[in-house]
Amino acid sequence: MAKLIIEAEEDVGYLLQEVLLKRYSILVDGEETMPANVVERAVDLHALRVIGSSGYQKCVNYLWRGWLVQDDDDPSRFVDYKEKTSTSYWVHFDPDRLRVPMYQNTVQIAFSVIYLALYTGAINSINPSGDLDIVEGLLYVFTFGFICDEVAKLWKVGRWYLGFWNIYNSTLYALLAVSFVTRMIALGHPIGDERRFRFNVLSYNFLAFSAPMFWTRLLLFLDGFRFFGAMLVVLKVMMRESLIFFLLLLVVLVGFLQAFVGLDQVDNNLGATKFILKAMANAIMGSPEFDGFDGFAPPFGLILYYIFNFIIVVILLNILIALYNSAYEDITDNAIDEYMALFSQKTMQFVRAPDENVFIAPFNLIELFCLVLPFEWWMPAPAYARLNDYVMGFLYTPLLLVTAYLETRTARVVSWNRRRGEADEDTVEEWEQLGESERAAGREGVDFEADGWAKRVLESRPNVVANAALVEVRELREEVAELKRMIEGIRGRG
Amino acid sequence: MAKLIIEAEEDVGYLLQEVLLKRYSILVDGEETMPANVVERAVDLHALRVIGSSGYQKCVNYLWRGWLVQDDDDPSRFVDYKEKTSTSYWVHFDPDRLRVPMYQNTVQIAFSVIYLALYTGAINSINPSGDLDIVEGLLYVFTFGFICDEVAKLWKVGRWYLGFWNIYNSTLYALLAVSFVTRMIALGHPIGDERRFRFNVLSYNFLAFSAPMFWTRLLLFLDGFRFFGAMLVVLKVMMRESLIFFLLLLVVLVGFLQAFVGLDQVDNNLGATKFILKAMANAIMGSPEFDGFDGFAPPFGLILYYIFNFIIVVILLNILIALYNSAYEDITDNAIDEYMALFSQKTMQFVRAPDENVFIAPFNLIELFCLVLPFEWWMPAPAYARLNDYVMGFLYTPLLLVTAYLETRTARVVSWNRRRGEADEDTVEEWEQLGESERAAGREGVDFEADGWAKRVLESRPNVVANAALVEVRELREEVAELKRMIEGIRGRG
Amino acid sequence: MAKLIIEAEEDVGYLLQEVLLKRYSILVDGEETMPANVVERAVDLHALRVIGSSGYQKCVNYLWRGWLVQDDDDPSRFVDYKEKTSTSYWVHFDPDRLRVPMYQNTVQIAFSVIYLALYTGAINSINPSGDLDIVEGLLYVFTFGFICDEVAKLWKVGRWYLGFWNIYNSTLYALLAVSFVTRMIALGHPIGDERRFRFNVLSYNFLAFSAPMFWTRLLLFLDGFRFFGAMLVVLKVMMRESLIFFLLLLVVLVGFLQAFVGLDQVDNNLGATKFILKAMANAIMGSPEFDGFDGFAPPFGLILYYIFNFIIVVILLNILIALYNSAYEDITDNAIDEYMALFSQKTMQFVRAPDENVFIAPFNLIELFCLVLPFEWWMPAPAYARLNDYVMGFLYTPLLLVTAYLETRTARVVSWNRRRGEADEDTVEEWEQLGESERAAGREGVDFEADGWAKRVLESRPNVVANAALVEVRELREEVAELKRMIEGIRGRG
Amino acid sequence: MAKLIIEAEEDVGYLLQEVLLKRYSILVDGEETMPANVVERAVDLHALRVIGSSGYQKCVNYLWRGWLVQDDDDPSRFVDYKEKTSTSYWVHFDPDRLRVPMYQNTVQIAFSVIYLALYTGAINSINPSGDLDIVEGLLYVFTFGFICDEVAKLWKVGRWYLGFWNIYNSTLYALLAVSFVTRMIALGHPIGDERRFRFNVLSYNFLAFSAPMFWTRLLLFLDGFRFFGAMLVVLKVMMRESLIFFLLLLVVLVGFLQAFVGLDQVDNNLGATKFILKAMANAIMGSPEFDGFDGFAPPFGLILYYIFNFIIVVILLNILIALYNSAYEDITDNAIDEYMALFSQKTMQFVRAPDENVFIAPFNLIELFCLVLPFEWWMPAPAYARLNDYVMGFLYTPLLLVTAYLETRTARVVSWNRRRGEADEDTVEEWEQLGESERAAGREGVDFEADGWAKRVLESRPNVVANAALVEVRELREEVAELKRMIEGIRGRG
Repeated sequence: MAKLIIEAEEDVGYLLQEVLLKRYSILVDGEETMPANVVERAVDLHALRVIGSSGYQKCVNYLWRGWLVQDDDDPSRFVDYKEKTSTSYWVHFDPDRLRVPMYQNTVQIAFSVIYLALYTGAINSINPSGDLDIVEGLLYVFTFGFICDEVAKLWKVGRWYLGFWNIYNSTLYALLAVSFVTRMIALGHPIGDERRFRFNVLSYNFLAFSAPMFWTRLLLFLDGFRFFGAMLVVLKVMMRESLIFFLLLLVVLVGFLQAFVGLDQVDNNLGATKFILKAMANAIMGSPEFDGFDGFAPPFGLILYYIFNFIIVVILLNILIALYNSAYEDITDNAIDEYMALFSQKTMQFVRAPDENVFIAPFNLIELFCLVLPFEWWMPAPAYARLNDYVMGFLYTPLLLVTAYLETRTARVVSWNRRRGEADEDTVEEWEQLGESERAAGREGVDFEADGWAKRVLESRPNVVANAALVEVRELREEVAELKRMIEGIRGRG
Repeated sequence: MAKLIIEAEEDVGYLLQEVLLKRYSILVDGEETMPANVVERAVDLHALRVIGSSGYQKCVNYLWRGWLVQDDDDPSRFVDYKEKTSTSYWVHFDPDRLRVPMYQNTVQIAFSVIYLALYTGAINSINPSGDLDIVEGLLYVFTFGFICDEVAKLWKVGRWYLGFWNIYNSTLYALLAVSFVTRMIALGHPIGDERRFRFNVLSYNFLAFSAPMFWTRLLLFLDGFRFFGAMLVVLKVMMRESLIFFLLLLVVLVGFLQAFVGLDQVDNNLGATKFILKAMANAIMGSPEFDGFDGFAPPFGLILYYIFNFIIVVILLNILIALYNSAYEDITDNAIDEYMALFSQKTMQFVRAPDENVFIAPFNLIELFCLVLPFEWWMPAPAYARLNDYVMGFLYTPLLLVTAYLETRTARVVSWNRRRGEADEDTVEEWEQLGESERAAGREGVDFEADGWAKRVLESRPNVVANAALVEVRELREEVAELKRMIEGIRGRG
Repeated sequence: MAKLIIEAEEDVGYLLQEVLLKRYSILVDGEETMPANVVERAVDLHALRVIGSSGYQKCVNYLWRGWLVQDDDDPSRFVDYKEKTSTSYWVHFDPDRLRVPMYQNTVQIAFSVIYLALYTGAINSINPSGDLDIVEGLLYVFTFGFICDEVAKLWKVGRWYLGFWNIYNSTLYALLAVSFVTRMIALGHPIGDERRFRFNVLSYNFLAFSAPMFWTRLLLFLDGFRFFGAMLVVLKVMMRESLIFFLLLLVVLVGFLQAFVGLDQVDNNLGATKFILKAMANAIMGSPEFDGFDGFAPPFGLILYYIFNFIIVVILLNILIALYNSAYEDITDNAIDEYMALFSQKTMQFVRAPDENVFIAPFNLIELFCLVLPFEWWMPAPAYARLNDYVMGFLYTPLLLVTAYLETRTARVVSWNRRRGEADEDTVEEWEQLGESERAAGREGVDFEADGWAKRVLESRPNVVANAALVEVRELREEVAELKRMIEGIRGRG
Repeated sequence: MAKLIIEAEEDVGYLLQEVLLKRYSILVDGEETMPANVVERAVDLHALRVIGSSGYQKCVNYLWRGWLVQDDDDPSRFVDYKEKTSTSYWVHFDPDRLRVPMYQNTVQIAFSVIYLALYTGAINSINPSGDLDIVEGLLYVFTFGFICDEVAKLWKVGRWYLGFWNIYNSTLYALLAVSFVTRMIALGHPIGDERRFRFNVLSYNFLAFSAPMFWTRLLLFLDGFRFFGAMLVVLKVMMRESLIFFLLLLVVLVGFLQAFVGLDQVDNNLGATKFILKAMANAIMGSPEFDGFDGFAPPFGLILYYIFNFIIVVILLNILIALYNSAYEDITDNAIDEYMALFSQKTMQFVRAPDENVFIAPFNLIELFCLVLPFEWWMPAPAYARLNDYVMGFLYTPLLLVTAYLETRTARVVSWNRRRGEADEDTVEEWEQLGESERAAGREGVDFEADGWAKRVLESRPNVVANAALVEVRELREEVAELKRMIEGIRGRG
């Protein structure tokens, strides 16, 4: 392969940094010259080096906090949030502020927690009669909202939208939908009917079956926390790497399954397929069952099962360990960068949303049934937009009360910072804390940082020294050139 | 050890690159000056650095697609495929084109899939009477063809031919041959005979027993896909590294087996050997059986079994994990290079085939029984060659119809590319896509590439900087030399 | 993130080294200019590079041995121990010397061993009547002393004091306290009462239950030995890294538990929770129980349990292995540095102790009940201090007899070394031994050292060469500058 | 730590190489200036870098083959083997040649194989009567010889002699001695006596019990083969690293054992100790037994056993895997060097043997009983030495017949090589084969070498480039200095 790719990447990286830096000096002008947003492009290209740069992170951070917002007139342009320093409470009480990624994320997490709480309530209030109580009703309404949301996004973004979490969520919603449908069928039968009872049990079973997915789904929304985020990145890479392993495992499994079924068919006792499947599954779980194979086409069955066990337990599972190990080490080396990339991607996802108005599920049901269906198709756009604003303002009032308060407080700090001639951020960064309270900071944060940075410094040290030599040599050349000019002068005179 | 080996390797590498590059400028002339093909030599020497070079990969790629073909007159020479740009359909409808590695590989994969399908059919149509149906007949015919192919290749290439996959395939064919022979013995007995039934069952058992090998055999032919190829390389290295471990395990096992058998002999209950073997195998599988050893030469039997378990489960299996880990990490670091080497080796294998005419198994049976046996020994060579061509043309007509169509289409692209002054390849490489559709490419391909390349860039960066310094210093020296001449001029005048 | 952190760290590191070196030349003067002790700061900041420097280690070593002691007048200042070279026995027989970290540590270990011995005695002298014998009495007195110690330290230091070992110890003490309380309740009932017997059994069970903690507690005090220290560091890091993993595991477990309980509720057989918990725990231990799930909401229960097993056994436990691996490799790379940091931290912990008088638990009980409560609140400070000294002198007499003897011997070596003009240390360091008895030293020590150092040397070699080039270039520049001056001189004359 | 150690090592390394190279140019003179042999010192210091140098390996190789032999007059001096080129058969038929490490090693391996064969014979010819047959007799004679050998070596070398393999062998011999003694006791009772039978069974049990040690003992003598040697090195390091882990495990085990025994004592069912031990051992083997703990001081017993399992299975065993992994990776990085060190050590062991006369066990019995005891104490030294030679010549005649033949053949090759002006070695080294039969060599050897070397080359490349810059700069400085002189010349004239 040619080295074109590096040069391309280096160039792109250079441009991005140039643009990103310019953006802060001449306020987003640099962006207009490019057809696509450089921040987005870096996320799409997964350019870790660019994403890891401090300028980039600052930009993402500003977007996350809503200090850079989409222009009302041109959603593809980002402008500085004008009212950043306004200390008036009602100025910040603006439904438009809900587009800020941080608030959207908070609302999403809140709804997820409520959703989980509803589920926990529903699963612990199982009644044999199968009547829908209020908790279950809300649970299904939420589920319907989420399903609508997924369908709408898939419709708008297309097949690129399908990622691991989307498929995961969709599976969960599908299970709940099946549970709902079976419940409806159950309720369709009269009370006391045996089928009503049977479908009710089936419905509850599907509901209970989805519990692990409900809880692990929490992880998705916890990726804002650094540790969970890094862990998720690691898990994601490990899963991707192990996919091919499981494919290999599948081929081996199919081969052995066919062999066992074949041996079984020879014996004509065709009911053993379930036993075979169970024995093979148990072997993978590390608790093989050798007893049943004694009378299974002896000695072929037993020998084959031993070979199967040896390949699975001794070879393949150990290879899986090696695979996980290798993936884990690769990813932990740049877990922080990967986490930043994840965070940037998440921020971009909110910013990039094609919608002007953000109705986070299950509020999208309100949008769908109370706004889009009855009004959108006949109402003039400005009126509809105003209506949207009113509804959003109403729905998000509790949140706005909080965010406006927080923003007002932040605004005070920012304006105070500005008066002191400092940057807008009010947070004292970790390394700034260093000088002040080394004890507190030293415990956790800096320890971690220092380790990572020390490694980087070590890695880049040869460059530094070599660079110094290079600089020296270049200066030397200039001096020699000067010398030459001087001698030429002498010669000219001589 | 002296450093001769590096210098030798560096020199060889230099020569190879020189030759490989020249080859494309002056069309394969460079090759004639060398007694052996440099491409082949690199494969044989497993010179990853050479194989990984873009020039080399281009060359292999051209060979793979059949744009460089063996000269009709001198099979050891490669010439450009003359009709590459011909857009005529019938020009490409040429049996000679079947020698192209890509097509041969496709045919091999197709036959493997058909073979597996036949097997699946046979195993699912087990009948107690044991009559050979058409599917089983075809299966055995295919097997016979594969066996002939292996024997012929072993005969021609010699013992160097024996690799892992050949032994693997041979074992599979042997199992099928045993199955066939036992079936024949069964059919030799009258219907209703108990022995007929017994041999039938035995035959079917052998047939079923080979199922895992059938399915894992698929992997061999799937190594053209990048992921499977890399995985196979990894597996191969891991198996090779673990061989010595299993030898060590064997010594330990033999030692313990002798100890248990000895303890058993002391007790004079000589029937326990099977129990001992089973207990030891179960220990390796991770589910030891301690109960049976309570009454086994107490307390020696139980103590020894605990020691055995500790050594196997706690020490040796964990060492195996460490071994796999180490091998896996070594190989994943240059998995792409290794995959390229595998691909080159595969291409070379097709190109290097000593045969002029390619009858892929099971067509080799047709060659053997319809051409070689009845005709070759009396027919004049040109007539026989023509006959060969006719037969091949007839057999491969379905394939030729497809390949000729594909080649015609490619030819159009190539001639269009040439008119535009570009290289012949019509494929837009990954890094070229980068500029166009960064979204699509960014998902999978470039992500992977970028990671690998970024690492390389990081590794080689010190060189780059140091090199820059070196260049600067050299230029500086020239300037100083010029200065010296100037001063000498002054002195001369002075 | 900006690179500020590195620069900050580099600066701090530079300062520390500067100060640490100065400290030995101008005797601790450098320290007064800094508000906080640089040695402590390095420990707090976990600045491995600084801690690993030889000057730092020398300083810590001097503190450990008591050659640098806290000034009597100003505890935040350290002065050279005046009597280091005094060979008089009674000069060293000074209760103040007990503040020396080495002696304090020895006493702590001794008490821990006695504590463990008491416990072993108590657990092996279990009597159904439940009467407290002398061993048990001492055990509980010790425990009370340790509890007072922990409470006092927590009171003084605040929540930063809570580390892994403190919580560990507190749990142990809590178990023993529970055991004591239940025993007291038991003794409150008359002999022969069934409740007395029951509470006695409960008390003994709690006592026995704490045995593993008692023994592993030994490790804490064995960290003075290099191997145990390094192992503890490794374990600590691994535990910290795996915390997040266990959190992830917990979420998965809660999810599955809810699912199983839900399925159970549907079936209305509500007593199965214990069975579910046991089955899940067994799955984590690697011995799943599939049998019980056959009749558990079929087929949901069994499928879910298989999925649970697969996720736990195949995915999560292997991820844990990968995590441990990665953490282990990271830590073993700089295990020696980490061990030095641990050692420094331990030394600092003793030095930094806010107390003037050191009553190591359980002697703190004597301090508390015989000194603080009856005397401290009314006695004048100097008299109280003298009383303290007397009591300490009395309590620690056995130890002082030994330490004074050892110090006298050391003093002789030191003064002899000084006369020979060498450093004070009487120990011949490993590399000094090299020249003398390479056989003995070569076995263990140097082997280890050489490996580690060789790696470092290899890593830093490029720097060295590049540095040489840099130096050369700089000298060259000076020469060229000289040349320029000469030519200017010529020009001036010309 | 100071950097003294590196400098020391570098210096030593420099000296060694200097001396080792000189040794070949001026024939071992360099050695006399040093009090101890540098080759031995490198082995003792485990200086891998020195041992891995080609000069060192050549030297060891010469010693191994006996081309450098100990001087007859001064055993601490090595001289060239004079008769290397002599093609006369009887010149090589010299008992002194048996001191050559290669032959000694061969004899040792041969005796080990015979010993194992005797053992296998003995264990498979177990007779209830317990009579000693010839095979068993020989086995015990061999064992006695080996024991004498170990005792003699331990006596001469001292406690430094005790290594892993020595303790291993001693354990084996002790088991066999116990077996012999019990057999003797058995034979002391009349036939038919129940005690005779019982002791016979005991004797055979001990004999059978030692089988695993017998077989794994083979590995020790197979370390001459490269693969086994490297594997042994790896195992050795892993065992050493895991020792501390097993110590940690032991502390945990003791803690839990005490807890379980304590809980057991409370219940007063004192017979459960065996059950506890078994349950704990099974937990370590990965097959815990939870059932028995249900009624064991509920709920303490069960909870404690779960905690125990969790700590052992999930935490400690995974840590062991991490430990093995880390050790394995460290060692495989320089496994070849380590193997060379092992080989050098082995060679030195033979060369360094304090004995003048080599009676390899069990021939040492002949030495002891036929030479030392009857003759040494009264015979004059020269006569005794001659007697020794005669006996050795007689014993080793079969071997001498072979070695003399081999040496004669080698001599012819060497003299032919010398006439051609080449080095003495007749073996074509791997890299020399490269040019000749790249196919054959490329399969195994070079592949391995190339990988290793390629890595080294990559690692050292920055140095090369930086070095080039350095050289250039230095030359530049000289040129500038010349320039300065020229200008001074001008100035002088001007």
